[in-house]
Amino acid sequence: MTVATGRSALEAELSLRVTKPGRLALSVAAAESAGVDTERLEIEGPSGSIPAVPPAELPHGTKIHVLDLPPGEVTISYRAERDGGPVEPIPLTEADLITYTRPSRYCPSDRMIGIALADFGRLPDPLSKVRAIVSYVAQRLVYVSGSSRPTDGALDTLLAGEGVCRDFAHLCVTYCRGLDIPARFVSVYAPGLSPMDFHAVFEAAIDGRWYMFDASRLAPRSSMVRIATGRDAADTAFLSTLGSEIDLRTTRVNATVVPATRIEEITDLVALA
Amino acid sequence: MTVATGRSALEAELSLRVTKPGRLALSVAAAESAGVDTERLEIEGPSGSIPAVPPAELPHGTKIHVLDLPPGEVTISYRAERDGGPVEPIPLTEADLITYTRPSRYCPSDRMIGIALADFGRLPDPLSKVRAIVSYVAQRLVYVSGSSRPTDGALDTLLAGEGVCRDFAHLCVTYCRGLDIPARFVSVYAPGLSPMDFHAVFEAAIDGRWYMFDASRLAPRSSMVRIATGRDAADTAFLSTLGSEIDLRTTRVNATVVPATRIEEITDLVALA
Amino acid sequence: MTVATGRSALEAELSLRVTKPGRLALSVAAAESAGVDTERLEIEGPSGSIPAVPPAELPHGTKIHVLDLPPGEVTISYRAERDGGPVEPIPLTEADLITYTRPSRYCPSDRMIGIALADFGRLPDPLSKVRAIVSYVAQRLVYVSGSSRPTDGALDTLLAGEGVCRDFAHLCVTYCRGLDIPARFVSVYAPGLSPMDFHAVFEAAIDGRWYMFDASRLAPRSSMVRIATGRDAADTAFLSTLGSEIDLRTTRVNATVVPATRIEEITDLVALA
Amino acid sequence: MTVATGRSALEAELSLRVTKPGRLALSVAAAESAGVDTERLEIEGPSGSIPAVPPAELPHGTKIHVLDLPPGEVTISYRAERDGGPVEPIPLTEADLITYTRPSRYCPSDRMIGIALADFGRLPDPLSKVRAIVSYVAQRLVYVSGSSRPTDGALDTLLAGEGVCRDFAHLCVTYCRGLDIPARFVSVYAPGLSPMDFHAVFEAAIDGRWYMFDASRLAPRSSMVRIATGRDAADTAFLSTLGSEIDLRTTRVNATVVPATRIEEITDLVALA
Repeated sequence: MTVATGRSALEAELSLRVTKPGRLALSVAAAESAGVDTERLEIEGPSGSIPAVPPAELPHGTKIHVLDLPPGEVTISYRAERDGGPVEPIPLTEADLITYTRPSRYCPSDRMIGIALADFGRLPDPLSKVRAIVSYVAQRLVYVSGSSRPTDGALDTLLAGEGVCRDFAHLCVTYCRGLDIPARFVSVYAPGLSPMDFHAVFEAAIDGRWYMFDASRLAPRSSMVRIATGRDAADTAFLSTLGSEIDLRTTRVNATVVPATRIEEITDLVALA
Repeated sequence: MTVATGRSALEAELSLRVTKPGRLALSVAAAESAGVDTERLEIEGPSGSIPAVPPAELPHGTKIHVLDLPPGEVTISYRAERDGGPVEPIPLTEADLITYTRPSRYCPSDRMIGIALADFGRLPDPLSKVRAIVSYVAQRLVYVSGSSRPTDGALDTLLAGEGVCRDFAHLCVTYCRGLDIPARFVSVYAPGLSPMDFHAVFEAAIDGRWYMFDASRLAPRSSMVRIATGRDAADTAFLSTLGSEIDLRTTRVNATVVPATRIEEITDLVALA
Repeated sequence: MTVATGRSALEAELSLRVTKPGRLALSVAAAESAGVDTERLEIEGPSGSIPAVPPAELPHGTKIHVLDLPPGEVTISYRAERDGGPVEPIPLTEADLITYTRPSRYCPSDRMIGIALADFGRLPDPLSKVRAIVSYVAQRLVYVSGSSRPTDGALDTLLAGEGVCRDFAHLCVTYCRGLDIPARFVSVYAPGLSPMDFHAVFEAAIDGRWYMFDASRLAPRSSMVRIATGRDAADTAFLSTLGSEIDLRTTRVNATVVPATRIEEITDLVALA
Repeated sequence: MTVATGRSALEAELSLRVTKPGRLALSVAAAESAGVDTERLEIEGPSGSIPAVPPAELPHGTKIHVLDLPPGEVTISYRAERDGGPVEPIPLTEADLITYTRPSRYCPSDRMIGIALADFGRLPDPLSKVRAIVSYVAQRLVYVSGSSRPTDGALDTLLAGEGVCRDFAHLCVTYCRGLDIPARFVSVYAPGLSPMDFHAVFEAAIDGRWYMFDASRLAPRSSMVRIATGRDAADTAFLSTLGSEIDLRTTRVNATVVPATRIEEITDLVALA
């Protein structure tokens, strides 16, 4: 199964004040596999432009820029473009299969095995189970902007019955792993999302391949562009301080695709570059 | 609605070793409302019989014997009998209504409002909601002896999908309170329970009266005899140390009723003396 | 030990919009034991004045007004005055001793026995332990307005290292109970508090009496006036919906005492009327 | 700094019954970096020997054998030997630095930042902080065999004040990450451990290198041999089912080193091969 979309333009602009100078990990660049053809990271500090170092590469082509920032006002802007040619589902490795059935910080699947089995254990195969999980989570949770805290995980989401995109993805991932289905968390640029922001979805391993699902159903999956891939939101935060302290003032994200295509109607099995 | 059962005999025998002398709260006596006609508490310490003081009375006729125990081997035995004449549902007070919609240690209903509404919020009235909760919990949870820890609450039970009688009751109480239905926890003697032990059920307030339910469905409700009534298992533990330290060796419970009657078939609205 | 303060004036004004009509429990009236000599509760609904019913009385003289409110804008205002004559510490009952060593929703002392013993177990007597707990909590926690959520308990506070007055009180109560020292939570009017608001403190049972402590150290204890007394904030919320739904617009509290007296310098053993 | 120990012999034997056939991930082989010179994995199924496939390799040279097991009794035995020549601390990568300051399932450092800063924030540098953390955890926790559950994390350990080796390591890792010090979890063979079993320690990144610490202080660190390295125990379980179901009957571990050397007295900065 292949999906073609048009040409995408991706932008993120962060404006922040560094109150304690130090290192900061930035995760806004499209993943290696996304195949961007132009890409530019610019950092403006209080006394002029700060050169960006090459990114550290984490598993699955995740690129992290580690910046060493001086105190004061800093603006970070990232811009990239890519062609949306056909995408083949990424095969999963034996190591993936092991890593992504394990519980993680915001997806404590070891505590949700009982409820996962009670809710979905009787379904015959992984694909039916994942589809049922996505439907259930889509139906049960209410999307409420600002309803969750950074330290909230899938259990909090299940109980509260509300959340934002990360919470929808965490709950799905946790149910999947509770059923021994490998599942992982992906941050993406999502053309068509409204209001525009960074977005989060999840991938489940079915028949040896990763497929992408989005229980929040807020944007067409076929035109999303992968940023970071990991166990849960702990692996994909767009900004984390490593000793520094900052006030994040504004985050502006933009992502467009021309022409916009949707293939949701044809299939729910979408693979992400 | 009235229920008549036969004559009940209740017994509890605890054998323990006091490793640090001090006070100990014992909650094995039938509640004031149970109307026992003979009752006897005997305590054998390492150097002979220890006289029992009159019980402290907690809300709802709960009787707590506070014992001051010397170090060494102690045997506590309680025996009582009662006639099971007709029982009228106990009216609930305004204070009950407020107290028993509040969250408590093992019934953190403030964290389960979202899930309670999603699961049962659409049902038309309190009685339908409580019946649906009892059915759901009865069906979802597996009774597994020894599966929970004393510090586990309703969230742990929901996630694990298994528990013992206290866990069934805690989960029901939490759902009820999440829907603003007053609900409380009751420890009981339960003739017919197998294996015999202390048992726990819950009461929900419906149309101004308390009715008793038991999602574990392990014993006939009509012949149960109330011991302690409270917010959750924190209020009904049959033994709690207040500064002392003990090793509990054995707990032997026996409860019989002659003739045994079951009214489960007629109605699910049972009131407990 | 007796304490005399001057004449206090207490005021609370709540402005809210009822979005779903129904019952609401209001807990702003001074407790029975506070001995107010004038007291007035006024409720203005969208179509005029709503008569207040007499309060339900909960344990320890806590008064709860249960209101049945129509949809629309409602203003609730409470005013009371009292003379601050000498106060004798309230004796504690056997039932208190049992109830207030139990774990509760926001004071899960059963999970903090280990840490409580490690931190304070070696101190010789209850008074030393309570004093050490209050000092430790006062020193460890940072008061940060808005830092906690209504569902946060003492564990969250301990880990976060910050909180508001309820969190300081919850953490102290939990440590006390973890050491088998009875402790309870009290909401109060606190002349001298800045910014003015409802306040929360705790009481510990020492040598058969209740003494009041405030690890937040934000107002003189000698002029505080008791509102509600209970296991933790679940028992003292100034407003709880019982089926109704509301938007709370503004809360205005005022409490003054003339002449203002402070006895903190003389003793830390303060009893609250 | 280099450390030399003698020749080690490592053995693990697991006896289990497969109740539902399927895949199982085994993590008992010494890590790639441990440089074993002889190594043998044997699997005996109900109808004879089962050939072992080559291990999947996870980050940091962790080797995982994925076995596909038939129903019935299975015995797995692993044997390896190595020379303990001098070991250089392993340099850490930029990716490590990012990954191991993130919170994980059993090390929720994002919830312990406040307490970590309050306890250790004032110390001047990472090495002082890690040493203080190890001392504090060693002193505060009591080693109690069987005291924790597989789902318990560092918060549970902190509160309970007791645990086993994994709990000591989890709590240290969580404190480190709460202070932005990269820290990771390592399962090891530990000659000298008594009673003999698999052991767990942690590594902290100090001045660009990984050093190993063991707050349980149960075995000499200089002769430990690395098995699996990861974020916490979720990454290092010696056995995990991937769809299969098993009853683990017995686990027998043996690890010896000749001659046994201890360098604890000289330095606490030990690097693990």
